[in-house]
This record gives sequence, C-alpha cells and structure tokens, in this order.
Amino acid sequence: MELRFSEALMDLRGSATREIWSKAKKPGMISLGGGSPARESLPMKQLEEIAAEIFSDYTLMSRGYNYASTEGFDELRGQVLELAKTFGIEIPGLGLSNVMITTGGGQAIDLALRTFVNRGDSILVENPTYLGFLQVAQSYGAKLTGVEAGDNGLILADLEEKMIRHKPKLLYVVPTFSNPTGKTYTRENRAAIVELAKKYNVIIIEDDPYSRLRISGSAVPPLKNFDRENDCVIYISSFSKVISPGIRLGYAIGREEIIRKMTIAKQGADLSSSNISQLLVLRYLEKGLYYPVVERAIPVYRERKNAMINAIGKYFPEEFSHTDPDGGLFIWGAFKTPIDTAAMFDEAINRNVAYVQGQTFYADGSGINTIRLNFSNENPETIERAIKILGELSKETIAAFHEKKMPAAS
Amino acid sequence: MELRFSEALMDLRGSATREIWSKAKKPGMISLGGGSPARESLPMKQLEEIAAEIFSDYTLMSRGYNYASTEGFDELRGQVLELAKTFGIEIPGLGLSNVMITTGGGQAIDLALRTFVNRGDSILVENPTYLGFLQVAQSYGAKLTGVEAGDNGLILADLEEKMIRHKPKLLYVVPTFSNPTGKTYTRENRAAIVELAKKYNVIIIEDDPYSRLRISGSAVPPLKNFDRENDCVIYISSFSKVISPGIRLGYAIGREEIIRKMTIAKQGADLSSSNISQLLVLRYLEKGLYYPVVERAIPVYRERKNAMINAIGKYFPEEFSHTDPDGGLFIWGAFKTPIDTAAMFDEAINRNVAYVQGQTFYADGSGINTIRLNFSNENPETIERAIKILGELSKETIAAFHEKKMPAAS
Repeated sequence: MELRFSEALMDLRGSATREIWSKAKKPGMISLGGGSPARESLPMKQLEEIAAEIFSDYTLMSRGYNYASTEGFDELRGQVLELAKTFGIEIPGLGLSNVMITTGGGQAIDLALRTFVNRGDSILVENPTYLGFLQVAQSYGAKLTGVEAGDNGLILADLEEKMIRHKPKLLYVVPTFSNPTGKTYTRENRAAIVELAKKYNVIIIEDDPYSRLRISGSAVPPLKNFDRENDCVIYISSFSKVISPGIRLGYAIGREEIIRKMTIAKQGADLSSSNISQLLVLRYLEKGLYYPVVERAIPVYRERKNAMINAIGKYFPEEFSHTDPDGGLFIWGAFKTPIDTAAMFDEAINRNVAYVQGQTFYADGSGINTIRLNFSNENPETIERAIKILGELSKETIAAFHEKKMPAAS
Repeated sequence: MELRFSEALMDLRGSATREIWSKAKKPGMISLGGGSPARESLPMKQLEEIAAEIFSDYTLMSRGYNYASTEGFDELRGQVLELAKTFGIEIPGLGLSNVMITTGGGQAIDLALRTFVNRGDSILVENPTYLGFLQVAQSYGAKLTGVEAGDNGLILADLEEKMIRHKPKLLYVVPTFSNPTGKTYTRENRAAIVELAKKYNVIIIEDDPYSRLRISGSAVPPLKNFDRENDCVIYISSFSKVISPGIRLGYAIGREEIIRKMTIAKQGADLSSSNISQLLVLRYLEKGLYYPVVERAIPVYRERKNAMINAIGKYFPEEFSHTDPDGGLFIWGAFKTPIDTAAMFDEAINRNVAYVQGQTFYADGSGINTIRLNFSNENPETIERAIKILGELSKETIAAFHEKKMPAAS
C-alpha cells in the first residue's frame, strides 16, 4: 500500500544528535555529542529512598496509579512555583493556573508550537539555536529566521528589524548557557527583548534547562521576570538536568489563557505526564533536596569544563576560537579556516569521538566551520583524551584544506 | 498583548470527559463518567516489590535515569511483541523495528495523526466513537465522517461507499469492547474491513485498550492479525487498563516505515516516555505478572457489569435500550423518547451522579438521546444506587418531555 505521509513528517529527518547518540553506542566511543547531565551527579540514593516511601504508601499510590489531571498534580505545580521564585521568577499574582507539568521541557515546547503556529507562520530564533527546536518548529510548517547574537545576547537592532519584516508569532531563546553556544544574555538585553516583544506582539518561548548548572559568575533573572504583567513570555524548564532526564518531567509557566490552551493540547498529546515521575519529583522537592543536590553536582561540572578548556588550549589549533561559559553543558567553537565539521565527523567516529557539527544549529544552514562540544558526559581524563584526538584531526583537516586550495590557486 | 492562537487550538474545547472528571471531584459524587479501571484491581503490591528491586539496582538505574532511545527500551519492545502474540497478533516477520513505546495509547494516536494528516484530510470513524479521538483529529484539521455500525461491526456497504466518496487517509476503530458502545466486531467483519482498506489505500488505526478485560465470550483476533503483510493497520494498545493509567505507557505495532516516522514525530513530542515507567512494566512482564493480574481483575469487572445491567433492568424506563458487552468498561444506551441527555446532566450532578452524554461521541453531532455508563469505577452497591438515581431522573425527564409536547399538540 502506498503511504501518504503528512507535510509535517514528509521532509523531517531524525535528529542529528539522536543519530550521533545511536552511533555513539558503539563500544569505546567517547561522546562529546549529547546533552546528558553528569551521570555521577544523578541523585540515585535519594530517589531510591523516595521510591521506597512512595510505592509503599497505598493511599498515595491508589491516586498515583490512576488517571490524574492533565495539568499535573496541584501540589507539584505549587512546588514548581516556589522553586521558580528561587531562581528569579517573582511576578505578582502568579498562581496554580499559570503553571503546568509536561513530559520533559521538550513537550512544553511542542505544546506551545501546537497552541500558536499555523503552517507558514514566522518564528524568530537565535542564530545558532537548539537543533531540537528547529526540527519540531519545521514540522509545524513554521518559517524560521535567525537573529544575530553577540556576547551580551541578541543584537537588538537585528531583532527589531526582523520583528518588523517577518511579523513573527514567536521568538524562541535559550538565554542562559545557551544551547549550543553556552552564552548568557545580560539583564539589560533581556529587558530590551521583552520590551520589543510587547511592542511587536510576539510571544517569547524562554527555554531554560541549564541555568541551575552555574559554575561561575552570578545569576541573571529569567526573561520571564522582566515580563511583569505575565503577558508575553512562556517560561519552560525541566528536571532533566538536575534530577534525571529519564523521568521526563518539565514545566511551563505563563499567562493563564496560554497555559489553558497548552493544557488542552496536552490532553490530545498524552493526557498527563507519568504520575510516578510526578510523585518522585514532588517528594524530592518537599524534602528540600533540589539545591543540595545541585550544589554537590556543580564541582563535577566545573572540573569537566575546566578540563575541556585546558585541553582545547593544549591540543586545538591556534585559529580555533571558542566560548568559555559560566555554566550549562556546552562549549562552542569555530575554526577560522572554513573546514566542514560535518565532513570531519565520520573520521572522528572512526577515532572514537563524537561531537555535533555546528551547522545543524543554524536556521539558515550556515556555520559549517563550527562545532558543539559537550563537557558534562565524560570524566576529565577522557575529555582530555577526546580533545587531543579532535585537536589532531582538526589540524589534519585544516592542513588538507590548504593543500587542496593551493594547487587550485597556483 | 493580543493572543493569536493556531487554527488547531482555536476552536478546540477541553474534553467533555475531562470536564466531567473535574466536576466529579466534588465530594460524594458517584462517577459513571470516566474510563478508569477498577482501583481495587491495580497491582499495587506487585509494583511496590518491583520498584524496590529497580530503584536499588544502580547499574540499571544509571541507565534508567539518563536519556534513552525515543522508540523505547529494546527489551520492553521485545516483551510487547511477545505479549501481542498472546492476544492474536501473529504476523510473520514482526520485529523490534515494528514496535514503539508511547506515553499512553493516546500518544500513539496523536503520533499517527501527526504522521499522516494534513488539514482538510478525511478520516472515517465508527459512529459513535471515542470522543478523545474526535477532538485530537479535529485539532489536526481532519474532516471526520461517521460510518454506521451494527451488532457485527461496521456496515461494510456504508464503509465502502464512504471510502469511495471521501477518499479518507485513515479509518479509526475500537473494534473490541468499543468506546462508547461496548460492542465487538466479528472476525468476518474485521477481515472485510482490512480488505476494503487495502483496496482503497486507507491506513487503519486500531485502538485496542480494552480487549484483555473480557468478562464472557471468546476472544477475537485484532484487525492487525488480518493484515497479513503488515501493511495497513497500526495497532495501538496500552498498559493503562491492566496495570495502571498513571504510569502512562502504551505502544504501537505496525509497518516499519510508519513506526519510523512516528518515532521521529515522538522525538519532537516528548523525546521518550518515562524510563521509570518503562522499567516497571518491563520487570512486570518479565516476571509473568500480566495475565495473573488480569485474571484476578476479571471477576471484579464481571460483578460490576452485572450489577449495572441488573440495576438498569430494575430502575430504568422500559423504553431504554442498551448494550450488554462481553467486556471493557462501558454500557451504552438510548432512550426512545428524544430527551437530551446533555440537558439532563446538570441535574444528575446535583443528585451526585456523573455520566457522559452520548452526543459527544458522534462525529456528526447526532445521538442526543444516548448515554455512556462506565461500570468499572464504582463498587456494585454504589452502582445500583447511582443507576436508581439516573433511572428516576430519566423517567422524570421523559415525563416532562411529553408534558411539554402535549400542550403544543393540543
């Protein structure tokens, strides 16, 4: 029988990072490719204790095992609001109707797209930005336009010009320890972005999975906190990076009408997120484990990032420029020579190192000479070994590039 | 700021059953409205034991807590294929690439729609059918057409005529203990439906959440088993009714190209289903608990269904005709007098009984005099009390209907 797939799926290929993940399954592979938190910092003992408490409480579980409300358990939504205050979301009047629980932060993104986007609608993103967002937004038929960014955040003139020209419905940003660059927008930049969004009637999706993984520097409040009337920013985060990705729990905080529509969208998507995961995280938060576990994890991330920065200095070619982020999971870099990091990938895999070619993060397909390196997944020694291999490979690739060019030029 | 929602969400209201569920939260309410399995038959003790095993196994959990593949754990997909054999899906060559794990059966439906449906595409459904499907399909902009059904299943002449006239991409059916009617298609009807689907190039979504809850009669193989070349049927089921709805785990079995596309769609939807839920169900299946727990549950369902059938005979008006299903969760009925069961609903809530007005299950908005009654959620005594209340209320409503008509006629 002939298969007539939807426009949404027709041209969509699998995620490059998921494919890397699948190639990286080969034994001995060192992965600098994914976005996993440090395995060693997952709170396995605490979750074991909490599970023992929960599963033996049949009163609780007779509720947990049955259907529950789509927006998530009220108690968990309340805890999420309290937690959000601690990282700077302090908007007067926020209540339970402004928050919903989702199956990972990724689902919240999908629900926001489902709630707002018709085929052909325009969306602005940072150039470069999270690959997963580009893919799912394309499946909704959105027209994606990249906004240029500098060290302080988005270039405001470029943002405004593109808001006027493209009349976007949405702006998607990862303003703290951005995926893929690791950069953080300044406070002033955030305030200005929110102002522009209000002026041009643009909803902002603020994706903030990494901000609690701060290694150095001081915290900047979320964009959401500059949205004083709780008007235009949908704040999305998750428990993936600080408790566990495998439990698949995230959340969205926003205007009541938007959260209500996203909840209706979630009814059709998966009815509700796993109650087991919700109860585990609820008890975890109630016990006050969130910050102690994060604080225990930070030195692990710091050590790994430093190992990577040092190894890049030692083994990468001089011409490689890169970020040195204050937190998150990623270092981002570019070679001055326009070598194609996608073409280099297969040889890297042969030498047992995986990374992500930077081009995949650009809405306009530019950035062939860029690369994203994850520093959270491997221990410092392994990171040094992998960076040495990549450094040598990139030097060889650059040399080959110049050799090829020379005969053509002579 | 002005909100410009998508076409998908613009006209979509919340699910009537979810709203009932929310009204039914009021203390003292007897719910014949939802689709919950019998609380008393949930395997709480077994799951407690399994959880203790799993959460203390740090080797397993360091995998479980991290990201995992979108299609689900290989071991669980293998167990699902073995399980599917036991209820009649025995197609040569089925392998892991033909099965994926989803966040409840509902997500599998959503992913199938995302994979196939463009706005304006036609979908055929049984008239009446599962309300949740009608709503999510409408959000994809599908044109829904109801196919008439009798006691043996779909009326084949009507199905063929509508396949020719509407050129549907999809046919959605709940062929065993249908939601809402409780009816089951015969073996011959199933074979003929698959033949017609192949002839007219229509993909069938076979939604089968209830077939293991068989109280009487003998099992009929799924439609999927008549799709010998694994060509046109996407078989969808879940662990919600036989293990727990709250764990949110379902699965889809189908042609490799379709499962691959649905997996790509799932990457954008939630990346993967909860690993905790997957590991719980995996261990549950490995321990061979599935059928013993189902067998222990069946007498509970039988007792409740019989209590409802008896009470209807005792308390409902003579003119009420209804199904007496061999399993599942629902009894479906119609009043001969065209009273509006939606208008009767608020008074039923006043008297502390919730049900679902039948009209919501019709693609064409007919069926105002029909009603769906769930028999799994309450104990036999409570069911009798609720049916007595509803019986009295419906007699009053019928009397009022005739009184109102008489003056008009005189």
